[in-house]
Amino acid sequence: MLNPADDAFRAQLARSLPEQLFRPLTAAYLEEPRGRYTGQGGLLLAPETVEQVSRIVAACAEARVGVVPFGGGTGLVGGQILPEGPAPVILSLERMNRIRAVHPEENLMIAEAGAILHDVQTAAAEADRLFPLSLASEGSCRIGGNLATNAGGVNVLRYGNARDLCLGLEAVLPDGRIWNGLKRLRKDNTGYDLRNLLIGAEGSLGVITAATLRLFPRPIQEGTALFTVRDPGAALELLALALSLTGGGVSAFELIHREGLNFLTETMPEVRQPFAERPERPEWMVLVDLGLGQGTPPAELLEAIFERGLEAGLVSDGLIAQNESQRAAFWAVRESIPLANRRIGSISSHDISVPLDSIADFISEATEAMQALGPVRINCFGHLGDGNLHFNVFPPRGQSRADFEHLRGKVKRGVHDLAAAYGGSVSAEHGIGRLKVDDLERYGDPAKLAAMRAIKAALDPAGIMNPGAVLRG
Amino acid sequence: MLNPADDAFRAQLARSLPEQLFRPLTAAYLEEPRGRYTGQGGLLLAPETVEQVSRIVAACAEARVGVVPFGGGTGLVGGQILPEGPAPVILSLERMNRIRAVHPEENLMIAEAGAILHDVQTAAAEADRLFPLSLASEGSCRIGGNLATNAGGVNVLRYGNARDLCLGLEAVLPDGRIWNGLKRLRKDNTGYDLRNLLIGAEGSLGVITAATLRLFPRPIQEGTALFTVRDPGAALELLALALSLTGGGVSAFELIHREGLNFLTETMPEVRQPFAERPERPEWMVLVDLGLGQGTPPAELLEAIFERGLEAGLVSDGLIAQNESQRAAFWAVRESIPLANRRIGSISSHDISVPLDSIADFISEATEAMQALGPVRINCFGHLGDGNLHFNVFPPRGQSRADFEHLRGKVKRGVHDLAAAYGGSVSAEHGIGRLKVDDLERYGDPAKLAAMRAIKAALDPAGIMNPGAVLRG
Repeated sequence: MLNPADDAFRAQLARSLPEQLFRPLTAAYLEEPRGRYTGQGGLLLAPETVEQVSRIVAACAEARVGVVPFGGGTGLVGGQILPEGPAPVILSLERMNRIRAVHPEENLMIAEAGAILHDVQTAAAEADRLFPLSLASEGSCRIGGNLATNAGGVNVLRYGNARDLCLGLEAVLPDGRIWNGLKRLRKDNTGYDLRNLLIGAEGSLGVITAATLRLFPRPIQEGTALFTVRDPGAALELLALALSLTGGGVSAFELIHREGLNFLTETMPEVRQPFAERPERPEWMVLVDLGLGQGTPPAELLEAIFERGLEAGLVSDGLIAQNESQRAAFWAVRESIPLANRRIGSISSHDISVPLDSIADFISEATEAMQALGPVRINCFGHLGDGNLHFNVFPPRGQSRADFEHLRGKVKRGVHDLAAAYGGSVSAEHGIGRLKVDDLERYGDPAKLAAMRAIKAALDPAGIMNPGAVLRG
Repeated sequence: MLNPADDAFRAQLARSLPEQLFRPLTAAYLEEPRGRYTGQGGLLLAPETVEQVSRIVAACAEARVGVVPFGGGTGLVGGQILPEGPAPVILSLERMNRIRAVHPEENLMIAEAGAILHDVQTAAAEADRLFPLSLASEGSCRIGGNLATNAGGVNVLRYGNARDLCLGLEAVLPDGRIWNGLKRLRKDNTGYDLRNLLIGAEGSLGVITAATLRLFPRPIQEGTALFTVRDPGAALELLALALSLTGGGVSAFELIHREGLNFLTETMPEVRQPFAERPERPEWMVLVDLGLGQGTPPAELLEAIFERGLEAGLVSDGLIAQNESQRAAFWAVRESIPLANRRIGSISSHDISVPLDSIADFISEATEAMQALGPVRINCFGHLGDGNLHFNVFPPRGQSRADFEHLRGKVKRGVHDLAAAYGGSVSAEHGIGRLKVDDLERYGDPAKLAAMRAIKAALDPAGIMNPGAVLRG
């Protein structure tokens, strides 16, 4: 059983920590974007060094006080909010936000956990390099949180998830010990992969304080197109074609459904829409982004992809961006859809993945199952090349999510059961947090769950690290 | 304390396992390529299904009998050989060698652990796909061993190590439980990364029985060149240039030293050498391999790389392969060097990595330190883009390794100390096995080591899995 971070504990900590580390606990640290969880007080600490993090965690371990690591607060599964139990220490990394070093010649940088993702991208760009992690919340999420949750986003197809972009970590383990694992090595086979164990553990096995991040050359040429595709299966065939023709130069391949465009018309009419002059909106589109070296221009390759796709009956129409402002306009469509979704208000949102082969079947089966439940609208979009779909279910026009609250459980269960039946995942990129602990228990492999519990108990015997996240406390 | 796999234990196992699983224990299972370790008997079992593996491991856990998983037997650090202690069960995966499924449209396949790497490559090629893991022993090493040791090889620069090529695992955990983790998903953030924990654990946390492996489109165009470079620092600058100009299309970038060519002349005069007609052999060369899509021909890009490298003073001479047989001839040079090394016989071989920035300094400092020890020859070659050098130290011509046995410890210690001082790794791609357990204790981070021991104790409390490998038993 844990103890609260009470006044006595605060006084004890204050003896060995500078006063400015204790911050007033504002609402921002007790809320999360989807409003499902509310934190219940505690002690907010914003350390400036890894040694201070170590001292805090060691004190918490000794006093059996919970520690909730806090990055940008943008997580969508409640991993950053402890809604019940003894009040914890909320350990915000916001002041550990330095870029410690950039090594462009080694294609890497070392950033502290509190660095905002956008600042990491900018630091890379200033050194003429690319840090490819890119997601909707990049203006406020922090790299430590991105790593703790193994964040995804639009460039996973080419560059991988957050874990694939990390070469080393500095972290404080649950007993307060500092692991100095900030290596600048591409290859290091010396012992168990502690780095990947902490990445994706959502703060339940320790606190990431800094990371060595991989950088890439910036593409010399970029190109973007929107193709209307026959269906999601055709989109996948088109992707295989594009990967082959470009030698792996596809940076993003995003599936968009007509409903997404409808939602934009309804809530964000200012967004310029593609194919607007066509008699009818196409049902399925893909946004294709190429990043290439010197040589053949991207537009020429996009043209070749389109021609080959047309011959094979995969695509029927297409728009190839002719300049940077058209590229930006195409991307604005894709990037506005999550906001349009929020404005409509989903009954239930899902972050699932299925084997690529099953995407088309999954979408049609899930759509049918949802429509059998009621007059819902479905906006299914996502990172097709990753098999990652945001299959989100909405009320019909004129009704609100509140009118469908009674269906929410059925909708979620229906989508998750189907994803699981296809050998899929009920959390492709958002993680488990607190929202999906039940799902993990329901759908997870029992041997893996047992191993996870054994690892948690071994590294964090008092259960202080992010109690109740990922695994039940 | 463990018990031996004696006759009584054999009799007990025989009650629940088919007789054909018990195989005569031949010398092949008790030897390893470098001849440093010799096994000491035990019980050889070659199961055919994961359920049989599970039954064997569960019985061993109950009886506290050690289990040594055995793949192709090609490991270079003794991870597959138990030279002392109670005789173990040697669990050979050789009969679990099926390719269970190939899904070219998903760019993946499912292979059993005992599949030989070359057969995995072939199965991919037959489906018009590339499985990029490629190393000297590919004709006999098995994919389960490649994963257990997180094997590297020549294509890591572009496609990553073995761990980066694996999407899912089926494995038997140390209590005999089967983990069904053979997902066909690119993204799955549901719980701790057990996959990466087993990969690289060298059989000390469980037995990998099958894996989902990533495939890639096969390059439409390939090209190869040999460039003579000013020094290793210039080679790195050239690599950055090549990565940028090709948009990441560099598949391999191998550093070769003149001594390697000398060794070929001495031991394999039949290998045709590049630059042979030049008045003097160049000191440093790089072998560059491109794999590209449609468009600009590789030779044109290699030409551009050479021109830019010449302007910048990085390269001085170059040969661009004009056809497949020239490509093969260039590669034959690189691939013959390890065999030439074996024929010369090293005093000590090292598989180190250092930060890319430090490669040039490391090589000159280490060379100087070695030459201060005696009249040694050094053949330093390797995967430059990964910072992974095989810095191998040889006796002078006319003398043998036996004459230098007294120096071996000093040589190894000198190279490893220096690699560690540069923030490098003393095992970049070969693993720890039994050979480098001392090194891991000497150079490893104490917090990481403590975490590793806690994980080992939690998952394998009786210590049956590959006793003494990675961690002292």
